[in-house]
Parts: sequence; structure tokens; C-alpha cells
Amino acid sequence: MEHKLATTEGQPIRCKAAVCRKAGEPLGIEEIMVAPPMPGEARIRIICSSLCRTDISFRNMQGPPANFPTILGHEAIGVVESVGEDVTEVAKGDMVVPIFIAECGECIDCKSSKSNLCSKFPFKLSPWMPRHATSRFVDLKGEIIHHFLSVSSFSEYTVVDIAHLTKIDPEVPPSKACLLSCGVSTGVGAAWRTAGVEPGSTVAIFGLGSIGLAVAEGARLCGATRIIGVDINSEKYEIGKKFGITDFVHSGECENKSASQVIIEMTDGGADYCFECVGNASLMHEAYASCRKGWGKTIVLGSDKPGSKLSLSCSEILVSGKSLVGCMFGGLKPKSHVPILIKRYLDKELNLDGFVTHEVEFKDINKAFDLMIKGQCLRCVIWMDK
Amino acid sequence: MEHKLATTEGQPIRCKAAVCRKAGEPLGIEEIMVAPPMPGEARIRIICSSLCRTDISFRNMQGPPANFPTILGHEAIGVVESVGEDVTEVAKGDMVVPIFIAECGECIDCKSSKSNLCSKFPFKLSPWMPRHATSRFVDLKGEIIHHFLSVSSFSEYTVVDIAHLTKIDPEVPPSKACLLSCGVSTGVGAAWRTAGVEPGSTVAIFGLGSIGLAVAEGARLCGATRIIGVDINSEKYEIGKKFGITDFVHSGECENKSASQVIIEMTDGGADYCFECVGNASLMHEAYASCRKGWGKTIVLGSDKPGSKLSLSCSEILVSGKSLVGCMFGGLKPKSHVPILIKRYLDKELNLDGFVTHEVEFKDINKAFDLMIKGQCLRCVIWMDK
Repeated sequence: MEHKLATTEGQPIRCKAAVCRKAGEPLGIEEIMVAPPMPGEARIRIICSSLCRTDISFRNMQGPPANFPTILGHEAIGVVESVGEDVTEVAKGDMVVPIFIAECGECIDCKSSKSNLCSKFPFKLSPWMPRHATSRFVDLKGEIIHHFLSVSSFSEYTVVDIAHLTKIDPEVPPSKACLLSCGVSTGVGAAWRTAGVEPGSTVAIFGLGSIGLAVAEGARLCGATRIIGVDINSEKYEIGKKFGITDFVHSGECENKSASQVIIEMTDGGADYCFECVGNASLMHEAYASCRKGWGKTIVLGSDKPGSKLSLSCSEILVSGKSLVGCMFGGLKPKSHVPILIKRYLDKELNLDGFVTHEVEFKDINKAFDLMIKGQCLRCVIWMDK
Repeated sequence: MEHKLATTEGQPIRCKAAVCRKAGEPLGIEEIMVAPPMPGEARIRIICSSLCRTDISFRNMQGPPANFPTILGHEAIGVVESVGEDVTEVAKGDMVVPIFIAECGECIDCKSSKSNLCSKFPFKLSPWMPRHATSRFVDLKGEIIHHFLSVSSFSEYTVVDIAHLTKIDPEVPPSKACLLSCGVSTGVGAAWRTAGVEPGSTVAIFGLGSIGLAVAEGARLCGATRIIGVDINSEKYEIGKKFGITDFVHSGECENKSASQVIIEMTDGGADYCFECVGNASLMHEAYASCRKGWGKTIVLGSDKPGSKLSLSCSEILVSGKSLVGCMFGGLKPKSHVPILIKRYLDKELNLDGFVTHEVEFKDINKAFDLMIKGQCLRCVIWMDK
């Protein structure tokens, strides 16, 4: 590998990638060409990725913002193979986590402690590189392959803008570090940074997938004493206990009561913080209804289908004193906050191990999709080299 | 008067009140009987009231929560005439401001710095006294007259629960202190406590009535550098300048642009804090749209008609990082925070004088209603003794 790195710098790399050519179809492992990084970019050798539900959504999406052919994958970890002109922040050999939102470090948002939405490289579902609006991928026939979420990690090599790269401690096992590239950071960050959960708080979490469980883990780390999980699958209670879930509400079997009615009764007025982790307007409404008057806060982490609306009673907004807020990546600034989570993992405070339920080789990447679609995994790690 | 006070304690008082007997009709000055205070209550001689738009809404309301006959009025100041059993917090002769929300000082909400919604005496539109669920008013035929917002200040004497009374410095001119009983506190508090406006902030205020102008005044006190007023009446700009308004957007004449589009352009991305002070779901939507991504906060102060809904795009909630919150009484705790505003007035920091545009005698109370309905006043003070 060292030899390969030494000779590839500045040259296109021919390598394997899992290409998605048509909505809904399995990915195909192909040989592709990965161009060298342009200024402000780095080329990365991917070590492993974990599959996130957003990869599945975009694999299945008919039409924009999905663009085919594309290389999916955005929860990942890799090693810098080479860097473009003027890049000093990372260097060859650095261990990096690519992240779908940027942190340029210079704009008004990056300089503010209140925002994680970089203005220089705003989040958009673009099929191109963020700085140069072109692709670094072509297939062997010369056809352009699109990027995905500024990451495209289902490839042995990818190119990522340095605004989207966070350098991390190489001591972390790669299969744990990659989780912090999206889902687990989103959940932990939502509890820690967006909600600001305090010791002794009561929390309700709607949807106990990986993001919901990561919210529980974040709430537990913040000292929440009661963490109520809400799901239609009661098996999630047992899994949830490993991440701090203390109580469970089966949202489909509440004896004609809504989940919010049950939570209000359990908590004598409602939870301090409610998290919607599914992406469903009616669950957002239930989460808002489950919050305590006076200071209850609802945090929206899930994305419903385009055009969907959350409808709230104007008088309830006024009279309840509740608040509603949404967040991307849990409100975390990638370069500022992910290294803190890495440290908390190394200090044995943050549970990452429990999220990795399956591991597959790259050639079996479609098995990872099947496992998640069937609800049989939390995170399935896809190894490039195994 | 002193003689009257000395002899009335423990006895019903016969006095004048402006009674509203039917929705939409002018108030009639009548002789009524005001019972002595029960335990936990105080009987108050009203000095003056200022008219608030909510008084007009309830005068005009067909059916519940309006209950006729009733004594309206809830922005007021008075002197304690006598107190019920076990009342030690206030005593005969104390200057007090009655306030429509309670502060019992003992419940979880009153003890929390995050809530102003007392749990022991929760806000409700009840026609009765909060602690004993009865009325202290009868007319001379013995018919019960209903209370309003736990205050009913359009009477020479009224009875108020001590949870709804704030003792204040008697140095303050009554016609200024009464403003802090509802509207001005709501606006100033929303900027100060609910939003937490910081020095250098940009603020947009939808609706430049007294509450919107009080938001401006609060934002100015918090150090906001740009305070944008939005109204359909451009005359409000001149008035607004006295309260800190620096820019004006005429919401009806923006060359086919919405107010939010204009504000986003003016502020290069949106205001830090947006306040909806009218009570209109579509303006709440505009306020939310006018907020800056990343940290923009929309504060709802106005109440739309029952059943109205605010509909927000789920994807905008998620991706924008904006927050939405409502508040009653500006998020202020009556007994804890109103004395601070009184002090800031006495220290010549808070502008209260500018709100009082008209003053009338009690017998002319219906003129106050006419002035406000015609939009000719900010606050009209109604004097009991003039």
C-alpha cells in the first residue's frame, strides 16, 4: 500500500467502487478512476463505512436530488492519500472522518458558538464537489459518476473537500470512529448541544433506530435520569437499555391513548426534552405534545418526505411556552466537536461498540442494505480491505 | 377615603364598576357590591387601568370563554384596602400591580428559572376567583358578575388572589406602573427573558402596536443594534423610532416581495430574533421565514383565533436549525421580574412614558375602547378618581 500511495500522488487512481446506476437497484462493484484532489481537497483511502438509512433513501429515490450513476456512502473513516494545492490542514497519512456538513472555520456561522451550518459551504444535496462543482469520479468508459453528500465513501478512494474532513486520533478503532461521521454524532449531539440536556432531566425519544439510541446515549452522558423510548417495535426496549433507555412506550399499543398522553401521565406533565428521530410529521406533533409546559423543548432530527408540514396550534404555541428546534448533525461542528466524542469513547464514557451489530466485506455491500431494510441491524460496517 | 377604608374592612363595599352585560355593547357604569377578600386574597382600590386589546376582544366575544355580565380590565394598579385570612405578603396600603398570570412561589415552575407558568394557579380563562372558584361581585339585584383574567380592574374595588399581585415601589407614577401589568411587560420580557436578545443583535418585530413597540424597547435595552419594525401602517415608523425601531418594512408594499424576503435581503440572511405580536398564523410563518439559519429564533406573543394552526415545512425545521417558542407575559415571573422593570423605569432606562398617549376619566371608559378600535392610541389610561 505504501508503494501504491507513493506512486499515485497527482495521478488518477484506478480502484473499486460500489456504483449505484439506477434507483432501487443493488449497487455494482466496478472499477472506476478517481482524479487527484484539486485545491482545497484531499484524496482519501477509505478504511470502512457504516451504512446509514439516508444511503438507502437515496439508492431508492426516483429523480433529483438523487443523481445516477452515483457513489453512495457517507459514514466513513479513511487515511489521506494525497492533498490538493494549498492544503495544509491535513497531510498524507492522517486519519480522517469525512462529514456531510462543512466547517470552514472562517464564516460567521463557523465563528459563532450558536450555529453549525457553515455559510461558505452550505449544506446542499449536490452531486458535485462543493468547492469546484465538478466530479472526481469517472467509470472506465469515461462517464462521470456523481458524488453524494460530499463524501461518497463506497469506494476504495474518494475525494473530499477539506472543509468536510475532521482529523482524528488514529488510536480509535475504525469501525467505531466511522459511526461519528453521521448517525451517532447526530443523536449524541442533539442531546448534548442542541437540547442541552441537564442532569436530572426527563427525555422522550421517538424512534429507537441508531439515531434515537444515540440520543439516549447522549442524554445518559448529560445526566438525564429518565429516558423514555417510544417505538412501534417493543424489542427495541431491550436494545435501548444498553444505551440508557429507562422506560418504554409502545406507540401502537397504548389502550386508545396516544403516546403523548401516556408520556404526560408517566412524567406528571410531560418530558423536559422530546426528540423526533424518525422523520414523520405526526410523530413531530406527538413529540411536541409530550413536552412539558413552561420549558419543554422538542428537537427534530428526522426528515419527512419533501413537502410535508408540521401543523401546530397557535394557541398552544403561545400558552405552553414550549419550544421547537431542528438540527443537522445534532448541532455539532464537525472539527470542533467530533474529536471530543472520540475522546469520550477512548475514555470509555461514550458507548460506540453497541451500535456495530454487523460487519461485511466490501463485495457484500448489498447485504448491508438488506440487513437495514429488514430492520435486523443497528449499524453494519462495510470493510474495504477485509 | 381613609375613613372609608377604615370602616369597610371585612364588609362588602358598594362602589362603581363598568359592567359589560352583552357581547359587543358599550360598558355601563353601575353600582355593584364587592365582597371582602377570602383567604389568600386581597381587596384592592384601583387607581387606574390602561386598556389592552384583550379587553376589547373579550368585550366583543360571543360565548365562552367570555362570560357576561363581567367586569373587564386587567392592566392596572391599585392600593390594598384589606386582606383575607392568612395573607402576609401584602398589607393594607401597599401599592400593587395585579397580573393575569400567577406566581405562587412554591410550585416546580415558580421554583425553576426556566418557566413562568405557575402550576398551582395555571393560566385559564376562568370567570371565577382562582383559589375559591367563586365571584366577589354582585350587582344591586344580587346577580353574580363574573371576573376576568383574575383581575377585573374596571371597578373602583376588585378582589385579586395574592398569587396574582406584585407589590411595587409606590414612587412610580400609577399611569406608568399599570402598563407593566400586561402589554409592556409582555413585549419587554419577550426580548429580555424569552429571546435573550444579545448586544449587537438584529431583531424583526411583526406588528407595531404597544406590544411590538415594547419588544423594540426591550430589544433596545438588551443592546440590539438593528430593530426592524414590520407593519401595514407606515405611520408606525415615526412612533417606533421613539422605542428603538431603526428600520421599517411596510408589509403590504414590498414590490411583490414578502416581508421575509425583504428582511432576508436587508440583513444578509435573516434576523437573529423575530417577534410575532399580532396573533396571525401567516405572520408567524413570515416571522419564522425571516429568521436567520443556524440560530434564528421566532418568538410568538400574539394569539390567533381559536383553532388556528401554524404550518411549518418539516424539512425547513430540520435543515435551518431555527427555533420557535411562544410565551405568556413575555416569559416574566410577575413578582420576580416586574419590580426590576419598575426600577429600570425609575433609573430612566426603560421608556414607559411614550406608551401613554391618552387619559380619560372612568365615566368615559367607552372612549378608551373607541380610541383603540380606531387605532388612535397606544395606551389610554382610565383614571378612577380623576
